[in-house]
Amino acid sequence: MPSQPLYLQLAGHYRQAMEAGTLRPGDRMPALRVLSERHGVSLSTALQTCRHLESLGWLEARPRSGYFVQSSVRPRLEPVPEPRAVLPNPAQYVGIHERVSSVVVRGRLAPVRFNLGGAAASAPLYPCEALRAASVRALRREPALWGQSVPHTGHPAFCAAVAKHLLSSGIVTAPREVIVTHGGTEALALALRAVGRPGDVVAIESPAYYGLLQLLESLGLRALEIPTSGHTGLSLEALDLAAASYEGIRAVVFVPHLQNPLGATMPAERRRQLVQWCEAHDIVLIEDDTFGPLYDADTPLPAAKSFDTTGNVIHCASLHKVLAPGMRLGWVLPGRWRSRIEMLKFTQSRGNEVLSQLAAADFIGSGSFERHLQRLRARLRRHRDWMAAAIAAGFPQGTRLSQPRGGVHLWLELPPGTPSESVFDAALHEGIRVAPGLMFSNSRRFDHCLRINCGLPPTPELGQALRRLGRIVAEAR
Amino acid sequence: MPSQPLYLQLAGHYRQAMEAGTLRPGDRMPALRVLSERHGVSLSTALQTCRHLESLGWLEARPRSGYFVQSSVRPRLEPVPEPRAVLPNPAQYVGIHERVSSVVVRGRLAPVRFNLGGAAASAPLYPCEALRAASVRALRREPALWGQSVPHTGHPAFCAAVAKHLLSSGIVTAPREVIVTHGGTEALALALRAVGRPGDVVAIESPAYYGLLQLLESLGLRALEIPTSGHTGLSLEALDLAAASYEGIRAVVFVPHLQNPLGATMPAERRRQLVQWCEAHDIVLIEDDTFGPLYDADTPLPAAKSFDTTGNVIHCASLHKVLAPGMRLGWVLPGRWRSRIEMLKFTQSRGNEVLSQLAAADFIGSGSFERHLQRLRARLRRHRDWMAAAIAAGFPQGTRLSQPRGGVHLWLELPPGTPSESVFDAALHEGIRVAPGLMFSNSRRFDHCLRINCGLPPTPELGQALRRLGRIVAEAR
Ligand SMILES: Cc1ncc(COP(=O)(O)O)c(C=O)c1O
Ligand SMILES: Cc1ncc(COP(=O)(O)O)c(C=O)c1O
Repeated sequence: MPSQPLYLQLAGHYRQAMEAGTLRPGDRMPALRVLSERHGVSLSTALQTCRHLESLGWLEARPRSGYFVQSSVRPRLEPVPEPRAVLPNPAQYVGIHERVSSVVVRGRLAPVRFNLGGAAASAPLYPCEALRAASVRALRREPALWGQSVPHTGHPAFCAAVAKHLLSSGIVTAPREVIVTHGGTEALALALRAVGRPGDVVAIESPAYYGLLQLLESLGLRALEIPTSGHTGLSLEALDLAAASYEGIRAVVFVPHLQNPLGATMPAERRRQLVQWCEAHDIVLIEDDTFGPLYDADTPLPAAKSFDTTGNVIHCASLHKVLAPGMRLGWVLPGRWRSRIEMLKFTQSRGNEVLSQLAAADFIGSGSFERHLQRLRARLRRHRDWMAAAIAAGFPQGTRLSQPRGGVHLWLELPPGTPSESVFDAALHEGIRVAPGLMFSNSRRFDHCLRINCGLPPTPELGQALRRLGRIVAEAR
Repeated sequence: MPSQPLYLQLAGHYRQAMEAGTLRPGDRMPALRVLSERHGVSLSTALQTCRHLESLGWLEARPRSGYFVQSSVRPRLEPVPEPRAVLPNPAQYVGIHERVSSVVVRGRLAPVRFNLGGAAASAPLYPCEALRAASVRALRREPALWGQSVPHTGHPAFCAAVAKHLLSSGIVTAPREVIVTHGGTEALALALRAVGRPGDVVAIESPAYYGLLQLLESLGLRALEIPTSGHTGLSLEALDLAAASYEGIRAVVFVPHLQNPLGATMPAERRRQLVQWCEAHDIVLIEDDTFGPLYDADTPLPAAKSFDTTGNVIHCASLHKVLAPGMRLGWVLPGRWRSRIEMLKFTQSRGNEVLSQLAAADFIGSGSFERHLQRLRARLRRHRDWMAAAIAAGFPQGTRLSQPRGGVHLWLELPPGTPSESVFDAALHEGIRVAPGLMFSNSRRFDHCLRINCGLPPTPELGQALRRLGRIVAEAR
């Protein structure tokens, strides 16, 4: 791309060198003077190059010594093992809601100093100032904004921005196909209400996002938990086995990137197979791509929706984790359930308010979104590496740790028999909130697990809190 | 109230005189000089008094002649008759959704110059500028607003404002009892999901707000349509009869003020009876007070919720019609279904965005809300009177017209046999959108009716459009 500014070209060159291992963690970057002479650029361009690589998390500046390749800390903990391909069982509601609620309520009531139980990064990692400014501009441009009824399926400017954004996942869609929702939560709720009736069986990942378990329960749908790998996601083999054993699976819900809580990312080829398998079995595929843009690469992998030729895939996503936790902006591409989902959205909540849509559309359209995502991924990578190292240092032997390629979660298997609910309570008592494994399944298979938010910036206090948590785990056995 | 400013005291005095009929429509107000001498106030206070009464719709200024008591136009049309107390039937879904949708979609696709099909007043009647300013202030006060996750059941400042606002309906509630929702629509959806299961029977008014019919259908609930008076609302006698004939009515939904579409307001004493009757029959009462603040009086009548001693009444309302059509802000007081409704809100859409809540709380807290409501009621009264006169002048003999004591709707019974769907289509063809009666019932009892929005300011063009509509009705027979 010859039209790129010089410093970006140069940064790309060095980034490749680091990716290829030519420059390794801890190596010293050539001095600015050397860079300037070697590449025939000015000193200030050389400096700009290093600063850019620093902002992306590739370099770190050491006082009086120059720039060094950031050392990515490798935890000494074992990775989370593959699941056994036990046959799942379609657990009708077995009380998950009360268990989850009691944990949520206890967590909300207690005074919390370190919230490691959440699902988004901390506020400073989001472009609050730019979104604030965009909101003020929108209010200036449309002074009667609060006086006018809202469009039913989304503001055209926002739908257009979403359609453009989806191109990076290989999804080609017209803006009018996008139905804007109150976050990914409402997107999922609409998709499930559209295709399922009370009593229907829905195959899901195991462990799965607890909000999905609650949603299924509240709709009277039965969750069939399918073994899921921490590396490649939902097991297609186990799914196939389940379909042979249980009649009438109505839908499959899966998270393609950085599955919550395991952190797994399903390879593109398996996504294609899953789309074809669902099509062949007349089972609806609901894709929940909440974390796609946090996947540690310049573009996400192609979405399952990008392989869909018949409208059998319903694609849901949200800006909650990637742009603004305070904006309740999600969307659904409804495939062949358009008129039903549109009707359900209308009867359930009407259209979304317009202001956040306008501010988000402005930001996404300006190109700032791509820059923001690059920085966010880089910062999350550093936070994640730091936290993995802190956990490796402070937790007892036998703890196993996920190695997600992006995102805001780490998944821990504690030594066998460690009750995560006691860990949760004891940690809460010290002002530390975590998400215990029991929240992520109707079974009790993950009761010895924890999900930990790694979207907080490293601080000495947080380091201490993690050491404290490690001791709590050691004592809980 | 001795602490009121002089001009307000004086205005109150003359307002009483007009209400008592001492000063009658068309009468000349005493001249400013006379007022000043008679009451010992300054000329500018006398002027302020008249201007205030003008802003409330009681006086009108005529150039060079002074102030006159506003003439309230009495239509020559007959009022809508009382319903026959026919036994209702629990019509399971009989296609209302497709009928309504097809009307909505046709209305949305056509180019519309006069939208008389809507349910709110036109934008200039809402305090857009003040809400815009409040939004900008909130963004300045909380610069990281879009970066922070939203509170689950509503922002404390907004819940406090709602609790204070509800005092005028006789409801005493703690702010933490208020669950903020995406408009009244979501409030109703949560209430119905909390208490009903698919197949359950819900008693409703007939005719009823079409959104409610769609909602019941989408939840698999069966609507039992109870005859409803245009004056006193839901017939308690018919309800009692229905309960004797049909086993297992699960809930009653009713609109206490300015029922949509009839415009009926249920007297306070009947509300108390309804609350007691529901309690005695173990039937949940869902109160949808969407229009309370538009009722033409200084305070609304006491809500059914104000008579509730056991938590059997679920109270729903919204700011859509009264403060800001562009804000999707409603709420539910969940009575004894608190934990279930809280859970359903969480699984269905999470909490509402914070910005509109902050702006609305600011406005409601400032006292501007009361002033706005007074002006809005006065302006709507004038628009309604004007429109009733225009309809009386332009529609065929035999048309009957509702006489609501406030709000944004008029309900017309066209001469028997006039098909409202043809009227809808022919009017749409001329750029005029109305809401045909068929939208408001699962039966076909109201197929010869129309609902017309009277929240638009009078203009010669609108007058012409209404004459045109009258001719379409005359020709449709
Ligand atoms: C996998 C997954 N899907 C959906 C959601 C809900 O997203 P939103 O906050 O946009 O409603 C979450 C939130 O944690 C999630 O982890
Ligand atoms: C009686 C009634 N209830 C509820 C609603 C829905 O209100 P909202 O726009 O706040 O969702 C309406 C809107 O027209 C209505 O007329």
